[in-house]
Amino acid sequence: MKTFTKTLSVATQKGVVASYIPELAKQNNTSFGIYVKQINGSNNAVGDWNVPFLIQSISKVLALSKAIIFEDNSIWNRVDVEASGNPFNHLSLLEQENGIPRNPFINSGAIVIADILVTYLENPKEDFLNYVRAISGDQSINYNLDVAASEQRTGFTNYATANLLKSYNNLKNDVDIVLDFYFHQCALELTCKQIANAFYLLYNRGVCINKKQHLTLSQVKRINAIMLTCGFYDEAVEFAFEVGLPGKSGVGAGIVALLTNDFVIVTWAPGLNKKGNSLIGMQALEQFTTKTNRSIF
Amino acid sequence: MKTFTKTLSVATQKGVVASYIPELAKQNNTSFGIYVKQINGSNNAVGDWNVPFLIQSISKVLALSKAIIFEDNSIWNRVDVEASGNPFNHLSLLEQENGIPRNPFINSGAIVIADILVTYLENPKEDFLNYVRAISGDQSINYNLDVAASEQRTGFTNYATANLLKSYNNLKNDVDIVLDFYFHQCALELTCKQIANAFYLLYNRGVCINKKQHLTLSQVKRINAIMLTCGFYDEAVEFAFEVGLPGKSGVGAGIVALLTNDFVIVTWAPGLNKKGNSLIGMQALEQFTTKTNRSIF
Amino acid sequence: MKTFTKTLSVATQKGVVASYIPELAKQNNTSFGIYVKQINGSNNAVGDWNVPFLIQSISKVLALSKAIIFEDNSIWNRVDVEASGNPFNHLSLLEQENGIPRNPFINSGAIVIADILVTYLENPKEDFLNYVRAISGDQSINYNLDVAASEQRTGFTNYATANLLKSYNNLKNDVDIVLDFYFHQCALELTCKQIANAFYLLYNRGVCINKKQHLTLSQVKRINAIMLTCGFYDEAVEFAFEVGLPGKSGVGAGIVALLTNDFVIVTWAPGLNKKGNSLIGMQALEQFTTKTNRSIF
Amino acid sequence: MKTFTKTLSVATQKGVVASYIPELAKQNNTSFGIYVKQINGSNNAVGDWNVPFLIQSISKVLALSKAIIFEDNSIWNRVDVEASGNPFNHLSLLEQENGIPRNPFINSGAIVIADILVTYLENPKEDFLNYVRAISGDQSINYNLDVAASEQRTGFTNYATANLLKSYNNLKNDVDIVLDFYFHQCALELTCKQIANAFYLLYNRGVCINKKQHLTLSQVKRINAIMLTCGFYDEAVEFAFEVGLPGKSGVGAGIVALLTNDFVIVTWAPGLNKKGNSLIGMQALEQFTTKTNRSIF
Repeated sequence: MKTFTKTLSVATQKGVVASYIPELAKQNNTSFGIYVKQINGSNNAVGDWNVPFLIQSISKVLALSKAIIFEDNSIWNRVDVEASGNPFNHLSLLEQENGIPRNPFINSGAIVIADILVTYLENPKEDFLNYVRAISGDQSINYNLDVAASEQRTGFTNYATANLLKSYNNLKNDVDIVLDFYFHQCALELTCKQIANAFYLLYNRGVCINKKQHLTLSQVKRINAIMLTCGFYDEAVEFAFEVGLPGKSGVGAGIVALLTNDFVIVTWAPGLNKKGNSLIGMQALEQFTTKTNRSIF
Repeated sequence: MKTFTKTLSVATQKGVVASYIPELAKQNNTSFGIYVKQINGSNNAVGDWNVPFLIQSISKVLALSKAIIFEDNSIWNRVDVEASGNPFNHLSLLEQENGIPRNPFINSGAIVIADILVTYLENPKEDFLNYVRAISGDQSINYNLDVAASEQRTGFTNYATANLLKSYNNLKNDVDIVLDFYFHQCALELTCKQIANAFYLLYNRGVCINKKQHLTLSQVKRINAIMLTCGFYDEAVEFAFEVGLPGKSGVGAGIVALLTNDFVIVTWAPGLNKKGNSLIGMQALEQFTTKTNRSIF
Repeated sequence: MKTFTKTLSVATQKGVVASYIPELAKQNNTSFGIYVKQINGSNNAVGDWNVPFLIQSISKVLALSKAIIFEDNSIWNRVDVEASGNPFNHLSLLEQENGIPRNPFINSGAIVIADILVTYLENPKEDFLNYVRAISGDQSINYNLDVAASEQRTGFTNYATANLLKSYNNLKNDVDIVLDFYFHQCALELTCKQIANAFYLLYNRGVCINKKQHLTLSQVKRINAIMLTCGFYDEAVEFAFEVGLPGKSGVGAGIVALLTNDFVIVTWAPGLNKKGNSLIGMQALEQFTTKTNRSIF
Repeated sequence: MKTFTKTLSVATQKGVVASYIPELAKQNNTSFGIYVKQINGSNNAVGDWNVPFLIQSISKVLALSKAIIFEDNSIWNRVDVEASGNPFNHLSLLEQENGIPRNPFINSGAIVIADILVTYLENPKEDFLNYVRAISGDQSINYNLDVAASEQRTGFTNYATANLLKSYNNLKNDVDIVLDFYFHQCALELTCKQIANAFYLLYNRGVCINKKQHLTLSQVKRINAIMLTCGFYDEAVEFAFEVGLPGKSGVGAGIVALLTNDFVIVTWAPGLNKKGNSLIGMQALEQFTTKTNRSIF
């Protein structure tokens, strides 16, 4: 593992920092962190692994892992589990499929999941934050309130999506309440290490770092299957091939990937490729699985 | 004309009353009115021609006739002038065409026109109402405030559309302000006669009933061309053939049609066909143009 | 009329000559012809009005005028009559609508019309040629066999379309036989004058130049309505506004337009605009209707 | 393993036998076979494992495993590697993506792969048959010529697809020649055992049963990644979750699935679910991986 992280070749292209969220535009694209947590207890860390960053879409996996407890398989009546074959914010597909999002990791699907959490959690934002703190083992985690507020002012596509869901009767709560929760969820800031801890339960068959059985094996399998097939927008197949692990990326330039019963790896490297995934992060993960020969294929 | 209206055969099917707006669901589908206003000054009226009804989408023509004065041809940078080939509330097309609605009579296009009016009118709702009163020659015309309020609570597709337009930067004012205006505009209540008066300017080369030159000939031609090709959702070609006149229908079961320099005819007959147009109204107009041999073809 | 044709301003842009058909690429884009035929018997001609050119899509109107006799309204079970809202060769729409083309002037619709002619005509290619010769009053009209043969070798999109129609059971004859006919139909060469003569029946209420009642008034109205709404690909509304006449353009750079009971005008001017219509021809027609004040609006 | 196959619960629903290919309509839907081949050399077989059936789309994996040798990564310039998110025969997507099929397992992608084989193989049909015989270790394997001939007469959607590819210049050989090859490829008849042998190379890191290194590890990983994400039409994510193995189904009611370095399992059970996959086969595979706890997640 040490060898790997030392020999990680420097990529020549850095990609483009996302600019539609002002906070993201400020990211320094020389930042780079990796954290690897193994089932056997050993961890490896490189660079900026301890710097909190906006996890954005990575939060969709955490939200799903909480929502699936409340509704279990009835979730799938409201969100499908198929690859989208379309960029992450298209409403066309939603209209074509009568308000049923293709999967819980495209924005429309994640908004339905947020709606479920708003329905079941007593104090949604507070309770969800506490859940993330608990499974990450770190009480210092917080929302970036500026980012959440900024999204609230300018996230028109998400408002369009939520209203369209509402028009199909696939949103139970008020649009504003659901999106307020959703914008906070996406604005969570975690370090590579905190994310690795939070995702422990997904490669440890549902058991959190604090030994609590959070999910059933069936629930874990489904979440991992969705990550593998839908975790990287329309670059999912590419990632499945190049890296060969279930994973999830975020526009905040983080990527998490895992191998059941073995390890979880988190990278953070600002600068996105054309498909919206961290350019350097994708390369680092590819090299990691190739050099360590750890992949599902 | 008398003969025509007397021999109008009774249609056996009545169509379905629109139910998504509670007020519309209350409509009595035995109501039936026709009003014909000729350029030579003679008028003919049948049945419930003097009962106010919700003009809904017919208001889009009136809104366009006001907005075109402020922006003239620069309007067409923000709204296209092509037939939509799709039902009236599809967002897919809007996404596909990067936020430029296909024409000003589909909902997305009408919302952009509303945005223009909100920009230019000092007191948009009041000023627009005064405009309609003026060109109809009737100060008693009003908004149905219950319907506007109902739409405000449940018009999720319109909220989705407006937010999507905003995400493409094709809405200059706040979503809530534009839709508040738009919901009022659609909730105007006019009688067949009042509508006929209001549309006088479109078959009288831009001159209103009060002799004011409101529009240029070029502006009139364009509005009429758009009515002919886009006035009836995806039944436009059918209407062009069956009736052969530029016109516009509304979900409130009204239809207006006109022949340049000749006459305007307005029908009101609750009960819509599958494409959202008044079933009896379409039949009445077809018989009218066939029997009087007045059509553009 | 004379004045008009003399004062026709020279357009600065000439557009691009279609190149996908080798014969078209050879067109000289300084050619320019106009022919106007009036119901009162007087004709006006300018420039290259007597030079034969490939009528291409203009032939779709002639084919429809023949097919409608055989099947009358049952045609509309196999071809719809709505504007397409999409460029002329898209298969997506055909798939979406289960094999029913949106109208008879997009390629898929025209291929269904060709299939009808192949079913009813004894010797389809010969009989159709004779029909065109008869209504044009000119026995010298012919197919350009080189162009038909070239299309047969390279018209893959049309083969795709015809096979897709076949898969939906909306083609009764063999794909190869129907397309052989269709490629010949499109490869007809007529002069501006011959086209004007052929379209006489559509502004003369169904009666050909040889006094034969070819179509019913209802059939004429329908064909004209389809021309007005679908005659210019996705520039139909634009044309309806700019020119205000039913018409049809072809990629061979010809345009025909007419006013019921009044006149027909044909232009030929190589050099197409982005939407596939003759750039100069569109401008000439706009000036003609504006200066002569002859339009349906 | 024995226990598993004995306790396989009888499904109450049997699904529907595919009828668009006459030979498939004749299938007896009480047939049921399983064959499991393990890396350690032990095999298990149940029921009709030795009855040849039409492998149909399963042949797409074998064709890809041959084509990838000739072109390696340059294949991906002509076929993408993303999940399709659409049923298997849609042309819309192909048009939308300018003639580049989404992946090699939808029909359009498989036809491009067939085109590559036709380009590189001297006697395409003979050579491909010999390849399949070699990697299956069975010289008795053959094409069902009746089925190939039937498809040639009625496979209009495939002709549409191939011509559309040709129109985008993404087919190098003649449509008829490529489809003749493709229809034969799909009409291969193999038993469960023969398929298991043929797929040995994909779970044995590229080495065939006859010890020949056919593919590089990178090529194997890519094919398996595509099977996992695109192997089951729009039921791919569902299969990834339910079964958790890369695999491929065919309309002939066969399914093959594998776990790298461990085993391959083939089922055959006529009767398809709504998405076109064998209903009983899917259930058998789900029970197999659940009971034996062998899955990638």
